[in-house]
Amino acid sequence: MPVTLSHEAPDFERRFDALLDMKRESSADVDATVAGIIEDVATRGLDAVIELTRRFDRWEIDEASLAFTEAEIDAAIATVPAAEMAALELAAERITAYHARQLPEDDMWEDAAGVTLGWRWTPVDAAGLYVPGGLASYPSSVLMNAIPAQVAGVRRIEICAPTPDGRFNPLVLAAARLGGASRVWRIGGAQAIAAMAYGAGPIRPVDKITGPGNAYVAAAKRRVFGRVGIDMIAGPSEILVIADAANDPDWVATDLLSQAEHDESAQSILITTDAAFGAEVARAVDRLLQRLERTAIAGASWRDFGAVVVARDLTQAAELANRIAPEHLELCVANPEHLMGEIRHAGAIFLGRHTPEAIGDYVGGPNHVLPTARSARFSSGLSVLDYMKRTTIARVSPRGLAAIGPAAETLARSESLEAHALSVRCRLDAQEAAE
Amino acid sequence: MPVTLSHEAPDFERRFDALLDMKRESSADVDATVAGIIEDVATRGLDAVIELTRRFDRWEIDEASLAFTEAEIDAAIATVPAAEMAALELAAERITAYHARQLPEDDMWEDAAGVTLGWRWTPVDAAGLYVPGGLASYPSSVLMNAIPAQVAGVRRIEICAPTPDGRFNPLVLAAARLGGASRVWRIGGAQAIAAMAYGAGPIRPVDKITGPGNAYVAAAKRRVFGRVGIDMIAGPSEILVIADAANDPDWVATDLLSQAEHDESAQSILITTDAAFGAEVARAVDRLLQRLERTAIAGASWRDFGAVVVARDLTQAAELANRIAPEHLELCVANPEHLMGEIRHAGAIFLGRHTPEAIGDYVGGPNHVLPTARSARFSSGLSVLDYMKRTTIARVSPRGLAAIGPAAETLARSESLEAHALSVRCRLDAQEAAE
Repeated sequence: MPVTLSHEAPDFERRFDALLDMKRESSADVDATVAGIIEDVATRGLDAVIELTRRFDRWEIDEASLAFTEAEIDAAIATVPAAEMAALELAAERITAYHARQLPEDDMWEDAAGVTLGWRWTPVDAAGLYVPGGLASYPSSVLMNAIPAQVAGVRRIEICAPTPDGRFNPLVLAAARLGGASRVWRIGGAQAIAAMAYGAGPIRPVDKITGPGNAYVAAAKRRVFGRVGIDMIAGPSEILVIADAANDPDWVATDLLSQAEHDESAQSILITTDAAFGAEVARAVDRLLQRLERTAIAGASWRDFGAVVVARDLTQAAELANRIAPEHLELCVANPEHLMGEIRHAGAIFLGRHTPEAIGDYVGGPNHVLPTARSARFSSGLSVLDYMKRTTIARVSPRGLAAIGPAAETLARSESLEAHALSVRCRLDAQEAAE
Repeated sequence: MPVTLSHEAPDFERRFDALLDMKRESSADVDATVAGIIEDVATRGLDAVIELTRRFDRWEIDEASLAFTEAEIDAAIATVPAAEMAALELAAERITAYHARQLPEDDMWEDAAGVTLGWRWTPVDAAGLYVPGGLASYPSSVLMNAIPAQVAGVRRIEICAPTPDGRFNPLVLAAARLGGASRVWRIGGAQAIAAMAYGAGPIRPVDKITGPGNAYVAAAKRRVFGRVGIDMIAGPSEILVIADAANDPDWVATDLLSQAEHDESAQSILITTDAAFGAEVARAVDRLLQRLERTAIAGASWRDFGAVVVARDLTQAAELANRIAPEHLELCVANPEHLMGEIRHAGAIFLGRHTPEAIGDYVGGPNHVLPTARSARFSSGLSVLDYMKRTTIARVSPRGLAAIGPAAETLARSESLEAHALSVRCRLDAQEAAE
């Protein structure tokens, strides 16, 4: 049974806090294994990668068959049904258009003191994207990771996608090509992360690694962080729907289940101002669960982590949403723009009754890699900025140094950093001598 | 003896790689101790913080004396010499002006398909800044951490600054006030990080923790990451100076020593196109070391990690700089803007002969918290964006859903996510039925 909770309950605050504190992830302790794999790849390179792929993916590769050839990719794409290819192309186009608007601008100006200041954004040289094999091999995630890198101007985009027993998803290769990948390597797991961080045979090291993966991949990303950049480590998916009584309960129920079907640890929460509507949605969820393909997964998620919360009014609903800081937030209310003004923390907001979250997973345009587990309080979804970095720029003229140099000297001496002070003083002295 | 290396040496590449791979940090294994401290504070709250402060800082606090009072801050600021106060105010003003230009813009637009898209930036609710005690208690770092948070619009800025044996630096309190801190707590170490992450007595939890610290503080930040956001874990400081023979060797030598004096693990590298000039700078460094206050620290850094590299020309110098990806890069050449065009990776660039790096530490305006240990390949210095997060926004009209919904449905089915497909389909069916 999902949690059912009304603002009228005397222990509402305590029970809402308990909902926030729910532990949804069992962290398998794979760290020692992963440390060994990374060490092995860092030391022995390609030989280690080949052996580990034989062991974990039951697949024999050598240097020549390590990456898909262009011909193999062509052949795979030729098997993709036309409707799926067209849908993937529409998605790629829309994701590209959205992310192109995120490209940051450089700036440079001179201030009143005669100091030229600015910054410049540059892409990372090379990005590595991890694509899981098996069930979680989502072509949409390939687009969501590769396109921001492509838009950022990353010249080399390496993809690692394991092909256990030789099997692979042709749509993943189609997405890789649409996303501008330089190569797709048939390797996975911690060994793929290590190969991208340290290099292995023909796989040259990258500067930033992104993309979802299992516990081994996540642990490997944590371990190579510092040597390369990584994106966030995503937890199980979540949705919060704020809905008034004017919604169709079936629509809201499918939205809740669209997160629940991802993972038994996913969480779907409805906040409504109408207790009767909440009960109707819960009944609709139960009905839908009887016919859903992934009913076992979605049912377990809804039973263990689902919740229907009845709020006093929309203002209280917004306050509760800010405490949840959800990955996905649907505002299915009459005036969603107004309600959005009260929301401070959410990864992505979907406005109005005709914007199911699934639109954002595929073809909306914004990224579907979003902060989970309340981290929307302090972090953002994946963007073009994740594949770029900013260099700050300063140029001080002799006049500028005369204006601001003495203050730097004073502060350096107050911090007992004499050489700092001297580096300013020697230039000021030379100016004064020249006058 | 610092490394001396010429592009003409037959083993240049190997030796340059060795320079890049130098291990400068000994990572003290404090993780188990830190885990215990965090657990203690998370469980027992303020009591644990009081006990740990007694033990580590030899200082007795209770709930009432946990934070500096406004009167105590006033009294401390009154003891700051006028010149230092004026210098700090100039620094605060210039840092504020620079960071104000980093404030990102929100955006919202409707595209041809009838889909409204956009994003919105919001500040984190609360930021916690760590300020080390003792020697490394730098008021400039307080400004560099607090001001971006203040500019971002963070409403609550908590500072933790230990006062071992009761001692504190009045300039730190002055900087805290200039930076808009809500409170300054007299606690430090892993217990301060835990208190900011979990809350302890009157210390309410924050959403993001930034600021430098020793090995215990760094380990604690790593451990609370996920529950709160953190900034990068900074390594020892570095400078790379690219200088032609037209520079005053003494100026360049002070710039190299201004990093070396920070820390025995700091690294200062000169790349020059003129071997004789390189030798002159090395002699100037030796001369300066004889009179420098922090000669033991600066001398050890220069001896163990310093380097003078002679490059064929400025193009090779820029290539080597990109491989180093330095935290600080001075371009002391005739046309620094031109050379900057060849630089892809650097935390901060200082252009021309009159821009010593120390200007950037205090009064330039850009942030002095910058990526170390080659991480400028993939990350940026501290900025206003570190205290904000972006929420993506989508609103699909019925017409928009008719245009892009079928593609989402197709992709969802191809990924075997039926509820995703249904959440789109039920709305499309309703539209079709209504027509």
